[in-house]
Amino acid sequence: VSRPLYRIPVPQSVSGTNGYEIVVGAGIWRSLPGLIERYCLAHRYAVVTDHQVAELYGSRLLRAMHGAGHRTDIYAFPAGEEQKTRATWGAITDAMLEAGLGRDTALVALGGGVAGDLGGFVAATYLRGIPVVQLPTTLLAMIDASVGGKTGVNTPAGKNLVGAFWPPRVVVVDPEVLTTLPAAQLRSGLAEAVKHGAIADAAYLDGLATRREELRAVDPEALCELVVRSVEIKVEFVTRDEREAGPRKALNFGHTIGHALEALSGYRMLHGEAVAIGMVAEARIGERCGITEPGVAEALRSVLGSLDLPTALPQDVSVERVIELTRTDKKGRKGRTEYVLLSRLGAVDPAGERWAHPIADEVVREALSATR
Amino acid sequence: VSRPLYRIPVPQSVSGTNGYEIVVGAGIWRSLPGLIERYCLAHRYAVVTDHQVAELYGSRLLRAMHGAGHRTDIYAFPAGEEQKTRATWGAITDAMLEAGLGRDTALVALGGGVAGDLGGFVAATYLRGIPVVQLPTTLLAMIDASVGGKTGVNTPAGKNLVGAFWPPRVVVVDPEVLTTLPAAQLRSGLAEAVKHGAIADAAYLDGLATRREELRAVDPEALCELVVRSVEIKVEFVTRDEREAGPRKALNFGHTIGHALEALSGYRMLHGEAVAIGMVAEARIGERCGITEPGVAEALRSVLGSLDLPTALPQDVSVERVIELTRTDKKGRKGRTEYVLLSRLGAVDPAGERWAHPIADEVVREALSATR
Repeated sequence: VSRPLYRIPVPQSVSGTNGYEIVVGAGIWRSLPGLIERYCLAHRYAVVTDHQVAELYGSRLLRAMHGAGHRTDIYAFPAGEEQKTRATWGAITDAMLEAGLGRDTALVALGGGVAGDLGGFVAATYLRGIPVVQLPTTLLAMIDASVGGKTGVNTPAGKNLVGAFWPPRVVVVDPEVLTTLPAAQLRSGLAEAVKHGAIADAAYLDGLATRREELRAVDPEALCELVVRSVEIKVEFVTRDEREAGPRKALNFGHTIGHALEALSGYRMLHGEAVAIGMVAEARIGERCGITEPGVAEALRSVLGSLDLPTALPQDVSVERVIELTRTDKKGRKGRTEYVLLSRLGAVDPAGERWAHPIADEVVREALSATR
Repeated sequence: VSRPLYRIPVPQSVSGTNGYEIVVGAGIWRSLPGLIERYCLAHRYAVVTDHQVAELYGSRLLRAMHGAGHRTDIYAFPAGEEQKTRATWGAITDAMLEAGLGRDTALVALGGGVAGDLGGFVAATYLRGIPVVQLPTTLLAMIDASVGGKTGVNTPAGKNLVGAFWPPRVVVVDPEVLTTLPAAQLRSGLAEAVKHGAIADAAYLDGLATRREELRAVDPEALCELVVRSVEIKVEFVTRDEREAGPRKALNFGHTIGHALEALSGYRMLHGEAVAIGMVAEARIGERCGITEPGVAEALRSVLGSLDLPTALPQDVSVERVIELTRTDKKGRKGRTEYVLLSRLGAVDPAGERWAHPIADEVVREALSATR
């Protein structure tokens, strides 16, 4: 059975990093060695992944690569966001150096956001840079981290504060691997897809609600189409504005409050869950300011709810603590915190080319309280 | 008194990193704030330097920057190659994050090779990259590290094995600062200038011998011209071949044996001293193979000697250990070690586009023994 294969180009960026392709297709991981060698031929391959993903897909990938005659080794680290550190980066690099891997090596980052960011940063800095292939295993990594070439690690001062722009040679997405993803993590990815619809494509947003049963059942074709459309939208924003000064800010919709909720939960709340609540609250902020069309918050709440995502501020979360934390958000500017606001479903208010509005705490307080 | 100002463009590289200028002039550090803001305007400046250089030039730079109204702070680390580590890189980054420096910060790397490489790597990775201005204080950093945008740190497995290509916005070279450089370090830089002459410009090589008195006396005008010509030569080779696969290899002349001698001395031998001996030995190798014109080794020995550089293998150095170490040199390929060989003074033998010759140990052994 021949199934569709999608190829989405991510153009060369203004900062001069190279363009690449995101290849999406149900079942395409069965042809991984061929795809990897077509896009990124190398003398040796180093697969960077966490122990959990290594167990699920590592030995299969290794067997396939060896079968195709490629010298390939796995460099695995313990799973978890708390491993995304300089120390893990240093340990992986040292292990690769000890194994004598030269500049003719390519790195294969296999896993979710942590493996992608960490593996990407190893590739960006190993012998001053070796090529990297990204093989995302979470929906979030497929539709979010796959675009833009960001790599990096966390530091005591915060997340992703050290890193590099290091675009992969190719991202190979096989939605079939999502069948092994915990349901909560799948939902977390769906929240980002909802965000893409909310900021750029109302029809796509509608489709997410309509196809919720297929998505819940991890139907590979439905997920393929979702990944493709989400990636297209993200590519459009990132291409227009690489350094996050202008329209790209739109991608932060739901994230100002979302990041605060994530941090407040000690990162126990999943990113997508926090963003889901954040989007509803930020839509309410927009409605209160007369910038967002009335009814948008309710419509978002309904779509997110149909995808089993939370939309209400948990009872134990203090509104004042959330407001406090939005002020320390990376995107915040001194004084009033800035918010990306929708004008309607599928469109962000450009705020006179600034793409974000400084909002008084009082308005945020009201909107958050209404989101209980 | 108006003195000449030289501006050498380093073109945009094939890997997509941006081009920049190297500005050279005796006394131009007196106008540093103006130059820095013209080439790299930023909201805040972080000066990265070692304690020794901080004492010599740090407070003067700080006063000048503050006088010009620029928020500037110094991040200093203990002097020495052994500080060029991930740990120092992490500590500087953490201190900058703690100080709340944002993406609107520029880094100023002030010092020799260690400050340049380390500061450059901090800039390459801080918040995924901030601009950097390079202010070299050693002759070697002025004519070698200034071109090519290499940054990085050492690891237990070797030197410069982790890093990034991160070209500066500008390199500002003031040869007057060389008056405070220890004479041995100045000589070490002169060895690289001799190398530039040997591989690309016999007249330049002659000039170095002729003007040895001015160079020894640290005459700023003579040093200006030296820096300009050496930088031009290096730019030419690097531009033709950024990833070190082809003609750029010529810059490794004298370095295969040089690196081995450096390592063998536990890095107590200065880089330039090791390269000086390496050039004479490698010229002898070339003569023995009939590739290098007879008399070249002797001519090099004479120029190097007139600049007070060593040209003989120290008595306590074992020829066999040197040969052993050349095999682990980064540039080595399995089996025979490869050598860049001159055809005559001012020209490298292209070796049929491979730019290096695999040489039997026996020939190396003879050449080294003749270099006692």
